[in-house]
Amino acid sequence: MNSTAPSPVVERSPRAITRELAAFATGSRFAALPNSVRTEAARAFLNWMGCVLGGCRDPAVEIAVATVADAGGSPQASIIGHGRRADVASAAFVNCLSSTVLSFDDTHLATVTHPTGPVAAALFAFSEKHAISGEDFVTALALGIEIECRMSNVLLLPPARANVGLFVTGITGPIGAAAALGRLLQLDEQQMTAAIGLAAAQASGFRGTHGAMAAFMIPAHAARSGVSAAMLALKGFSSTENVLEAPKGFVDVFGSGGDLDRAVDGLGRHFELFSNAYKPYPSGIVVHPAIDACLEIAEQIPNEAALASVTLKVHPLALELCSRRAPKTPVEAQISLFHWAAACLVERAAGLAQLRQDCIDDPAVAALRARIAAVADPALARDEAIAEVTLTNGVSLRSHVPHARGSIARPLTDDELDAKFKAQASAVLSNGAGDKLLHLCRHVAGLRSVGNEIAAVWRD
Amino acid sequence: MNSTAPSPVVERSPRAITRELAAFATGSRFAALPNSVRTEAARAFLNWMGCVLGGCRDPAVEIAVATVADAGGSPQASIIGHGRRADVASAAFVNCLSSTVLSFDDTHLATVTHPTGPVAAALFAFSEKHAISGEDFVTALALGIEIECRMSNVLLLPPARANVGLFVTGITGPIGAAAALGRLLQLDEQQMTAAIGLAAAQASGFRGTHGAMAAFMIPAHAARSGVSAAMLALKGFSSTENVLEAPKGFVDVFGSGGDLDRAVDGLGRHFELFSNAYKPYPSGIVVHPAIDACLEIAEQIPNEAALASVTLKVHPLALELCSRRAPKTPVEAQISLFHWAAACLVERAAGLAQLRQDCIDDPAVAALRARIAAVADPALARDEAIAEVTLTNGVSLRSHVPHARGSIARPLTDDELDAKFKAQASAVLSNGAGDKLLHLCRHVAGLRSVGNEIAAVWRD
Repeated sequence: MNSTAPSPVVERSPRAITRELAAFATGSRFAALPNSVRTEAARAFLNWMGCVLGGCRDPAVEIAVATVADAGGSPQASIIGHGRRADVASAAFVNCLSSTVLSFDDTHLATVTHPTGPVAAALFAFSEKHAISGEDFVTALALGIEIECRMSNVLLLPPARANVGLFVTGITGPIGAAAALGRLLQLDEQQMTAAIGLAAAQASGFRGTHGAMAAFMIPAHAARSGVSAAMLALKGFSSTENVLEAPKGFVDVFGSGGDLDRAVDGLGRHFELFSNAYKPYPSGIVVHPAIDACLEIAEQIPNEAALASVTLKVHPLALELCSRRAPKTPVEAQISLFHWAAACLVERAAGLAQLRQDCIDDPAVAALRARIAAVADPALARDEAIAEVTLTNGVSLRSHVPHARGSIARPLTDDELDAKFKAQASAVLSNGAGDKLLHLCRHVAGLRSVGNEIAAVWRD
Repeated sequence: MNSTAPSPVVERSPRAITRELAAFATGSRFAALPNSVRTEAARAFLNWMGCVLGGCRDPAVEIAVATVADAGGSPQASIIGHGRRADVASAAFVNCLSSTVLSFDDTHLATVTHPTGPVAAALFAFSEKHAISGEDFVTALALGIEIECRMSNVLLLPPARANVGLFVTGITGPIGAAAALGRLLQLDEQQMTAAIGLAAAQASGFRGTHGAMAAFMIPAHAARSGVSAAMLALKGFSSTENVLEAPKGFVDVFGSGGDLDRAVDGLGRHFELFSNAYKPYPSGIVVHPAIDACLEIAEQIPNEAALASVTLKVHPLALELCSRRAPKTPVEAQISLFHWAAACLVERAAGLAQLRQDCIDDPAVAALRARIAAVADPALARDEAIAEVTLTNGVSLRSHVPHARGSIARPLTDDELDAKFKAQASAVLSNGAGDKLLHLCRHVAGLRSVGNEIAAVWRD
């Protein structure tokens, strides 16, 4: 060989992450899950079920239920809170929709993915059609959330160049749901690769839908798409083997330049589930630290008439995503920084009541919304906010929240999660039934047949 | 006002294209459609129905039928070619899948959208549930294709910066299907805006799926998503009013920088339907000019053993999309430039027979595939190709195809479309039934009840 010849170009082929994730999904075993993962998966499920109950009477859900009824699928799974049943995919669609309409669902903070909705909705609906043990259910839930959040990391964390408009739950949710359901379907590695590929091919959703029901449809559609992908794969529908990492593939299209290693490094040892947070307030999560700050201020003033001026300092994302000044509907109010700040200062609370139309229309709340100032401060963390107010008597007050309630640094306790569950369950279940359901969700890993035992709560 | 003050920044707000398209969709009337549009829409429908019949026994379709049967939807619409029925969305999914599995469907050449599949599948399934006149059907079909292709133009034509990996039929197909079905559902403008928004929120698909069944699922999923969007919108499910043009909206995410005027300029006067082509060969359309060139060469040689060398000169896209050298399956062979060139030279034909496994495995075809050279020539048009061969006797032959059969410059005649239809229909219908169906599709605008009259062909 001539020494002046150019050295051969070695093109580093990308890691076969589709295959690696498929192997992880098919190979996951309950016995290998750390106790802390089992516990956290149950907390995620409990939080999800509470949100389903809280949201199931929302107008968007009523429409979805009617649409699903028109299609007339087999009564395989509960449409939770409606005393009706539908086929697995349709039930997953509606139940996931219920879990997300109040924006009360969980959040993988690094990527603002709401991971449990699509995964739990797919799994729970299927667990009513086929007997699934609690151990298998928890295993599938944990691996689905893991794969979903890891793919969100690939798409959104440096060096990826993703479009900021992607609604990432709709993009990675189908993959998480398909992988999880594929585990329950006992797909082999080839089938699981196909399930992941078919799910990725259905990835959809962007944030230009926010402020309307459309935004809530996106995670619900992700759940339904994940079910479809796993079911097709079970029967032999094929996908390309490298659909995630291929040129013109999932990562190339949605998160160009994304670091594929994030998908697979430390799989089974490091769990993204621990970076998943539960919301104490039914609002866009980026608003939460400002809510905490305003609630602190509210405790120190006689009433909102005492306020001469209010200035919020927030992470820039809070204004980028939630800058709506004058929301007209609950859907708009959920993602309005100004509404939550005003409602907290007027009503000293930040719960479901502050999303009701009467609070949105309250002249005192509306007037305060209009005159609150907000400043994006890049020096603040995402879970950090400062509220500075001056009172009509000249006194200044300041509240600095370094970590919002429900953040990773300040996670909701089990008691707080229970209270959140009960507040939402009370809308559709008796206290006794709600308590029973809470217990079953908390101890889901120990159930013999998850769907049967849980659905018995509302069948009885 | 101080004259040194900065002049106010006027931010040009984008055109309200979601609204404008919704108004177009709700306002479209058969009486206002030029005759040429009516005729072309019927040709598109005829071509689609033929492709459904040709593809309906494909293994991918068999799997989809079984999956749909598991969900057990109401028998509202035909799963064409299977003697079964399903709910509208599921029937639309399967029928669209059938129409696309042979890659024989139509192509909007400027964007490589396959427009009729999602739109016709949604409309036809619905027309079996509710009596729909031929005039309404054709109107809805034409407007759905129009909106779909115009949005593809926005995303893919300059100055848009779309990712080349997008499988655009999956991205804009839901919008076309939802708008068309929304017209049949008599949505008002507000509901139509929501239907378009909900469909856009379900846009999905990328080309990294090509070479497996997953790629065919993408248009099918688009059809199903479009049905879901229109049905939800009918009952009041809301979307943002500017979902297409909003920041973080559809165009921003999928075709950043796209020219919104392309969506609406000349609406109702200029029709993209005339830029839609029907394939003479069941292969990736970018391969077609090379097929024509090879067929021409094949006529001039005794057999492939006479070939010493074969060089193809093609538009760069043909190699970018179809450079697979050694396909193993029909799905892979469809998009292999080398397979089609070799098969044409060996078998002197480019039809469904050249997609069968025995042709793919034929040692003569395989050997020729391995030694054909292909050169991307940016000076060639997309519908242009040159084949240059030298024979073992030293003679050189050259075939230059300036415009492929089925291109805009050389469209398939009605007779050619009829022949294509009959070749595909013969797989599942008697000649008499096939001829009857052909007649009904050609004259669909004159039918009183499209679904009933057409489905009678296979019911009888």
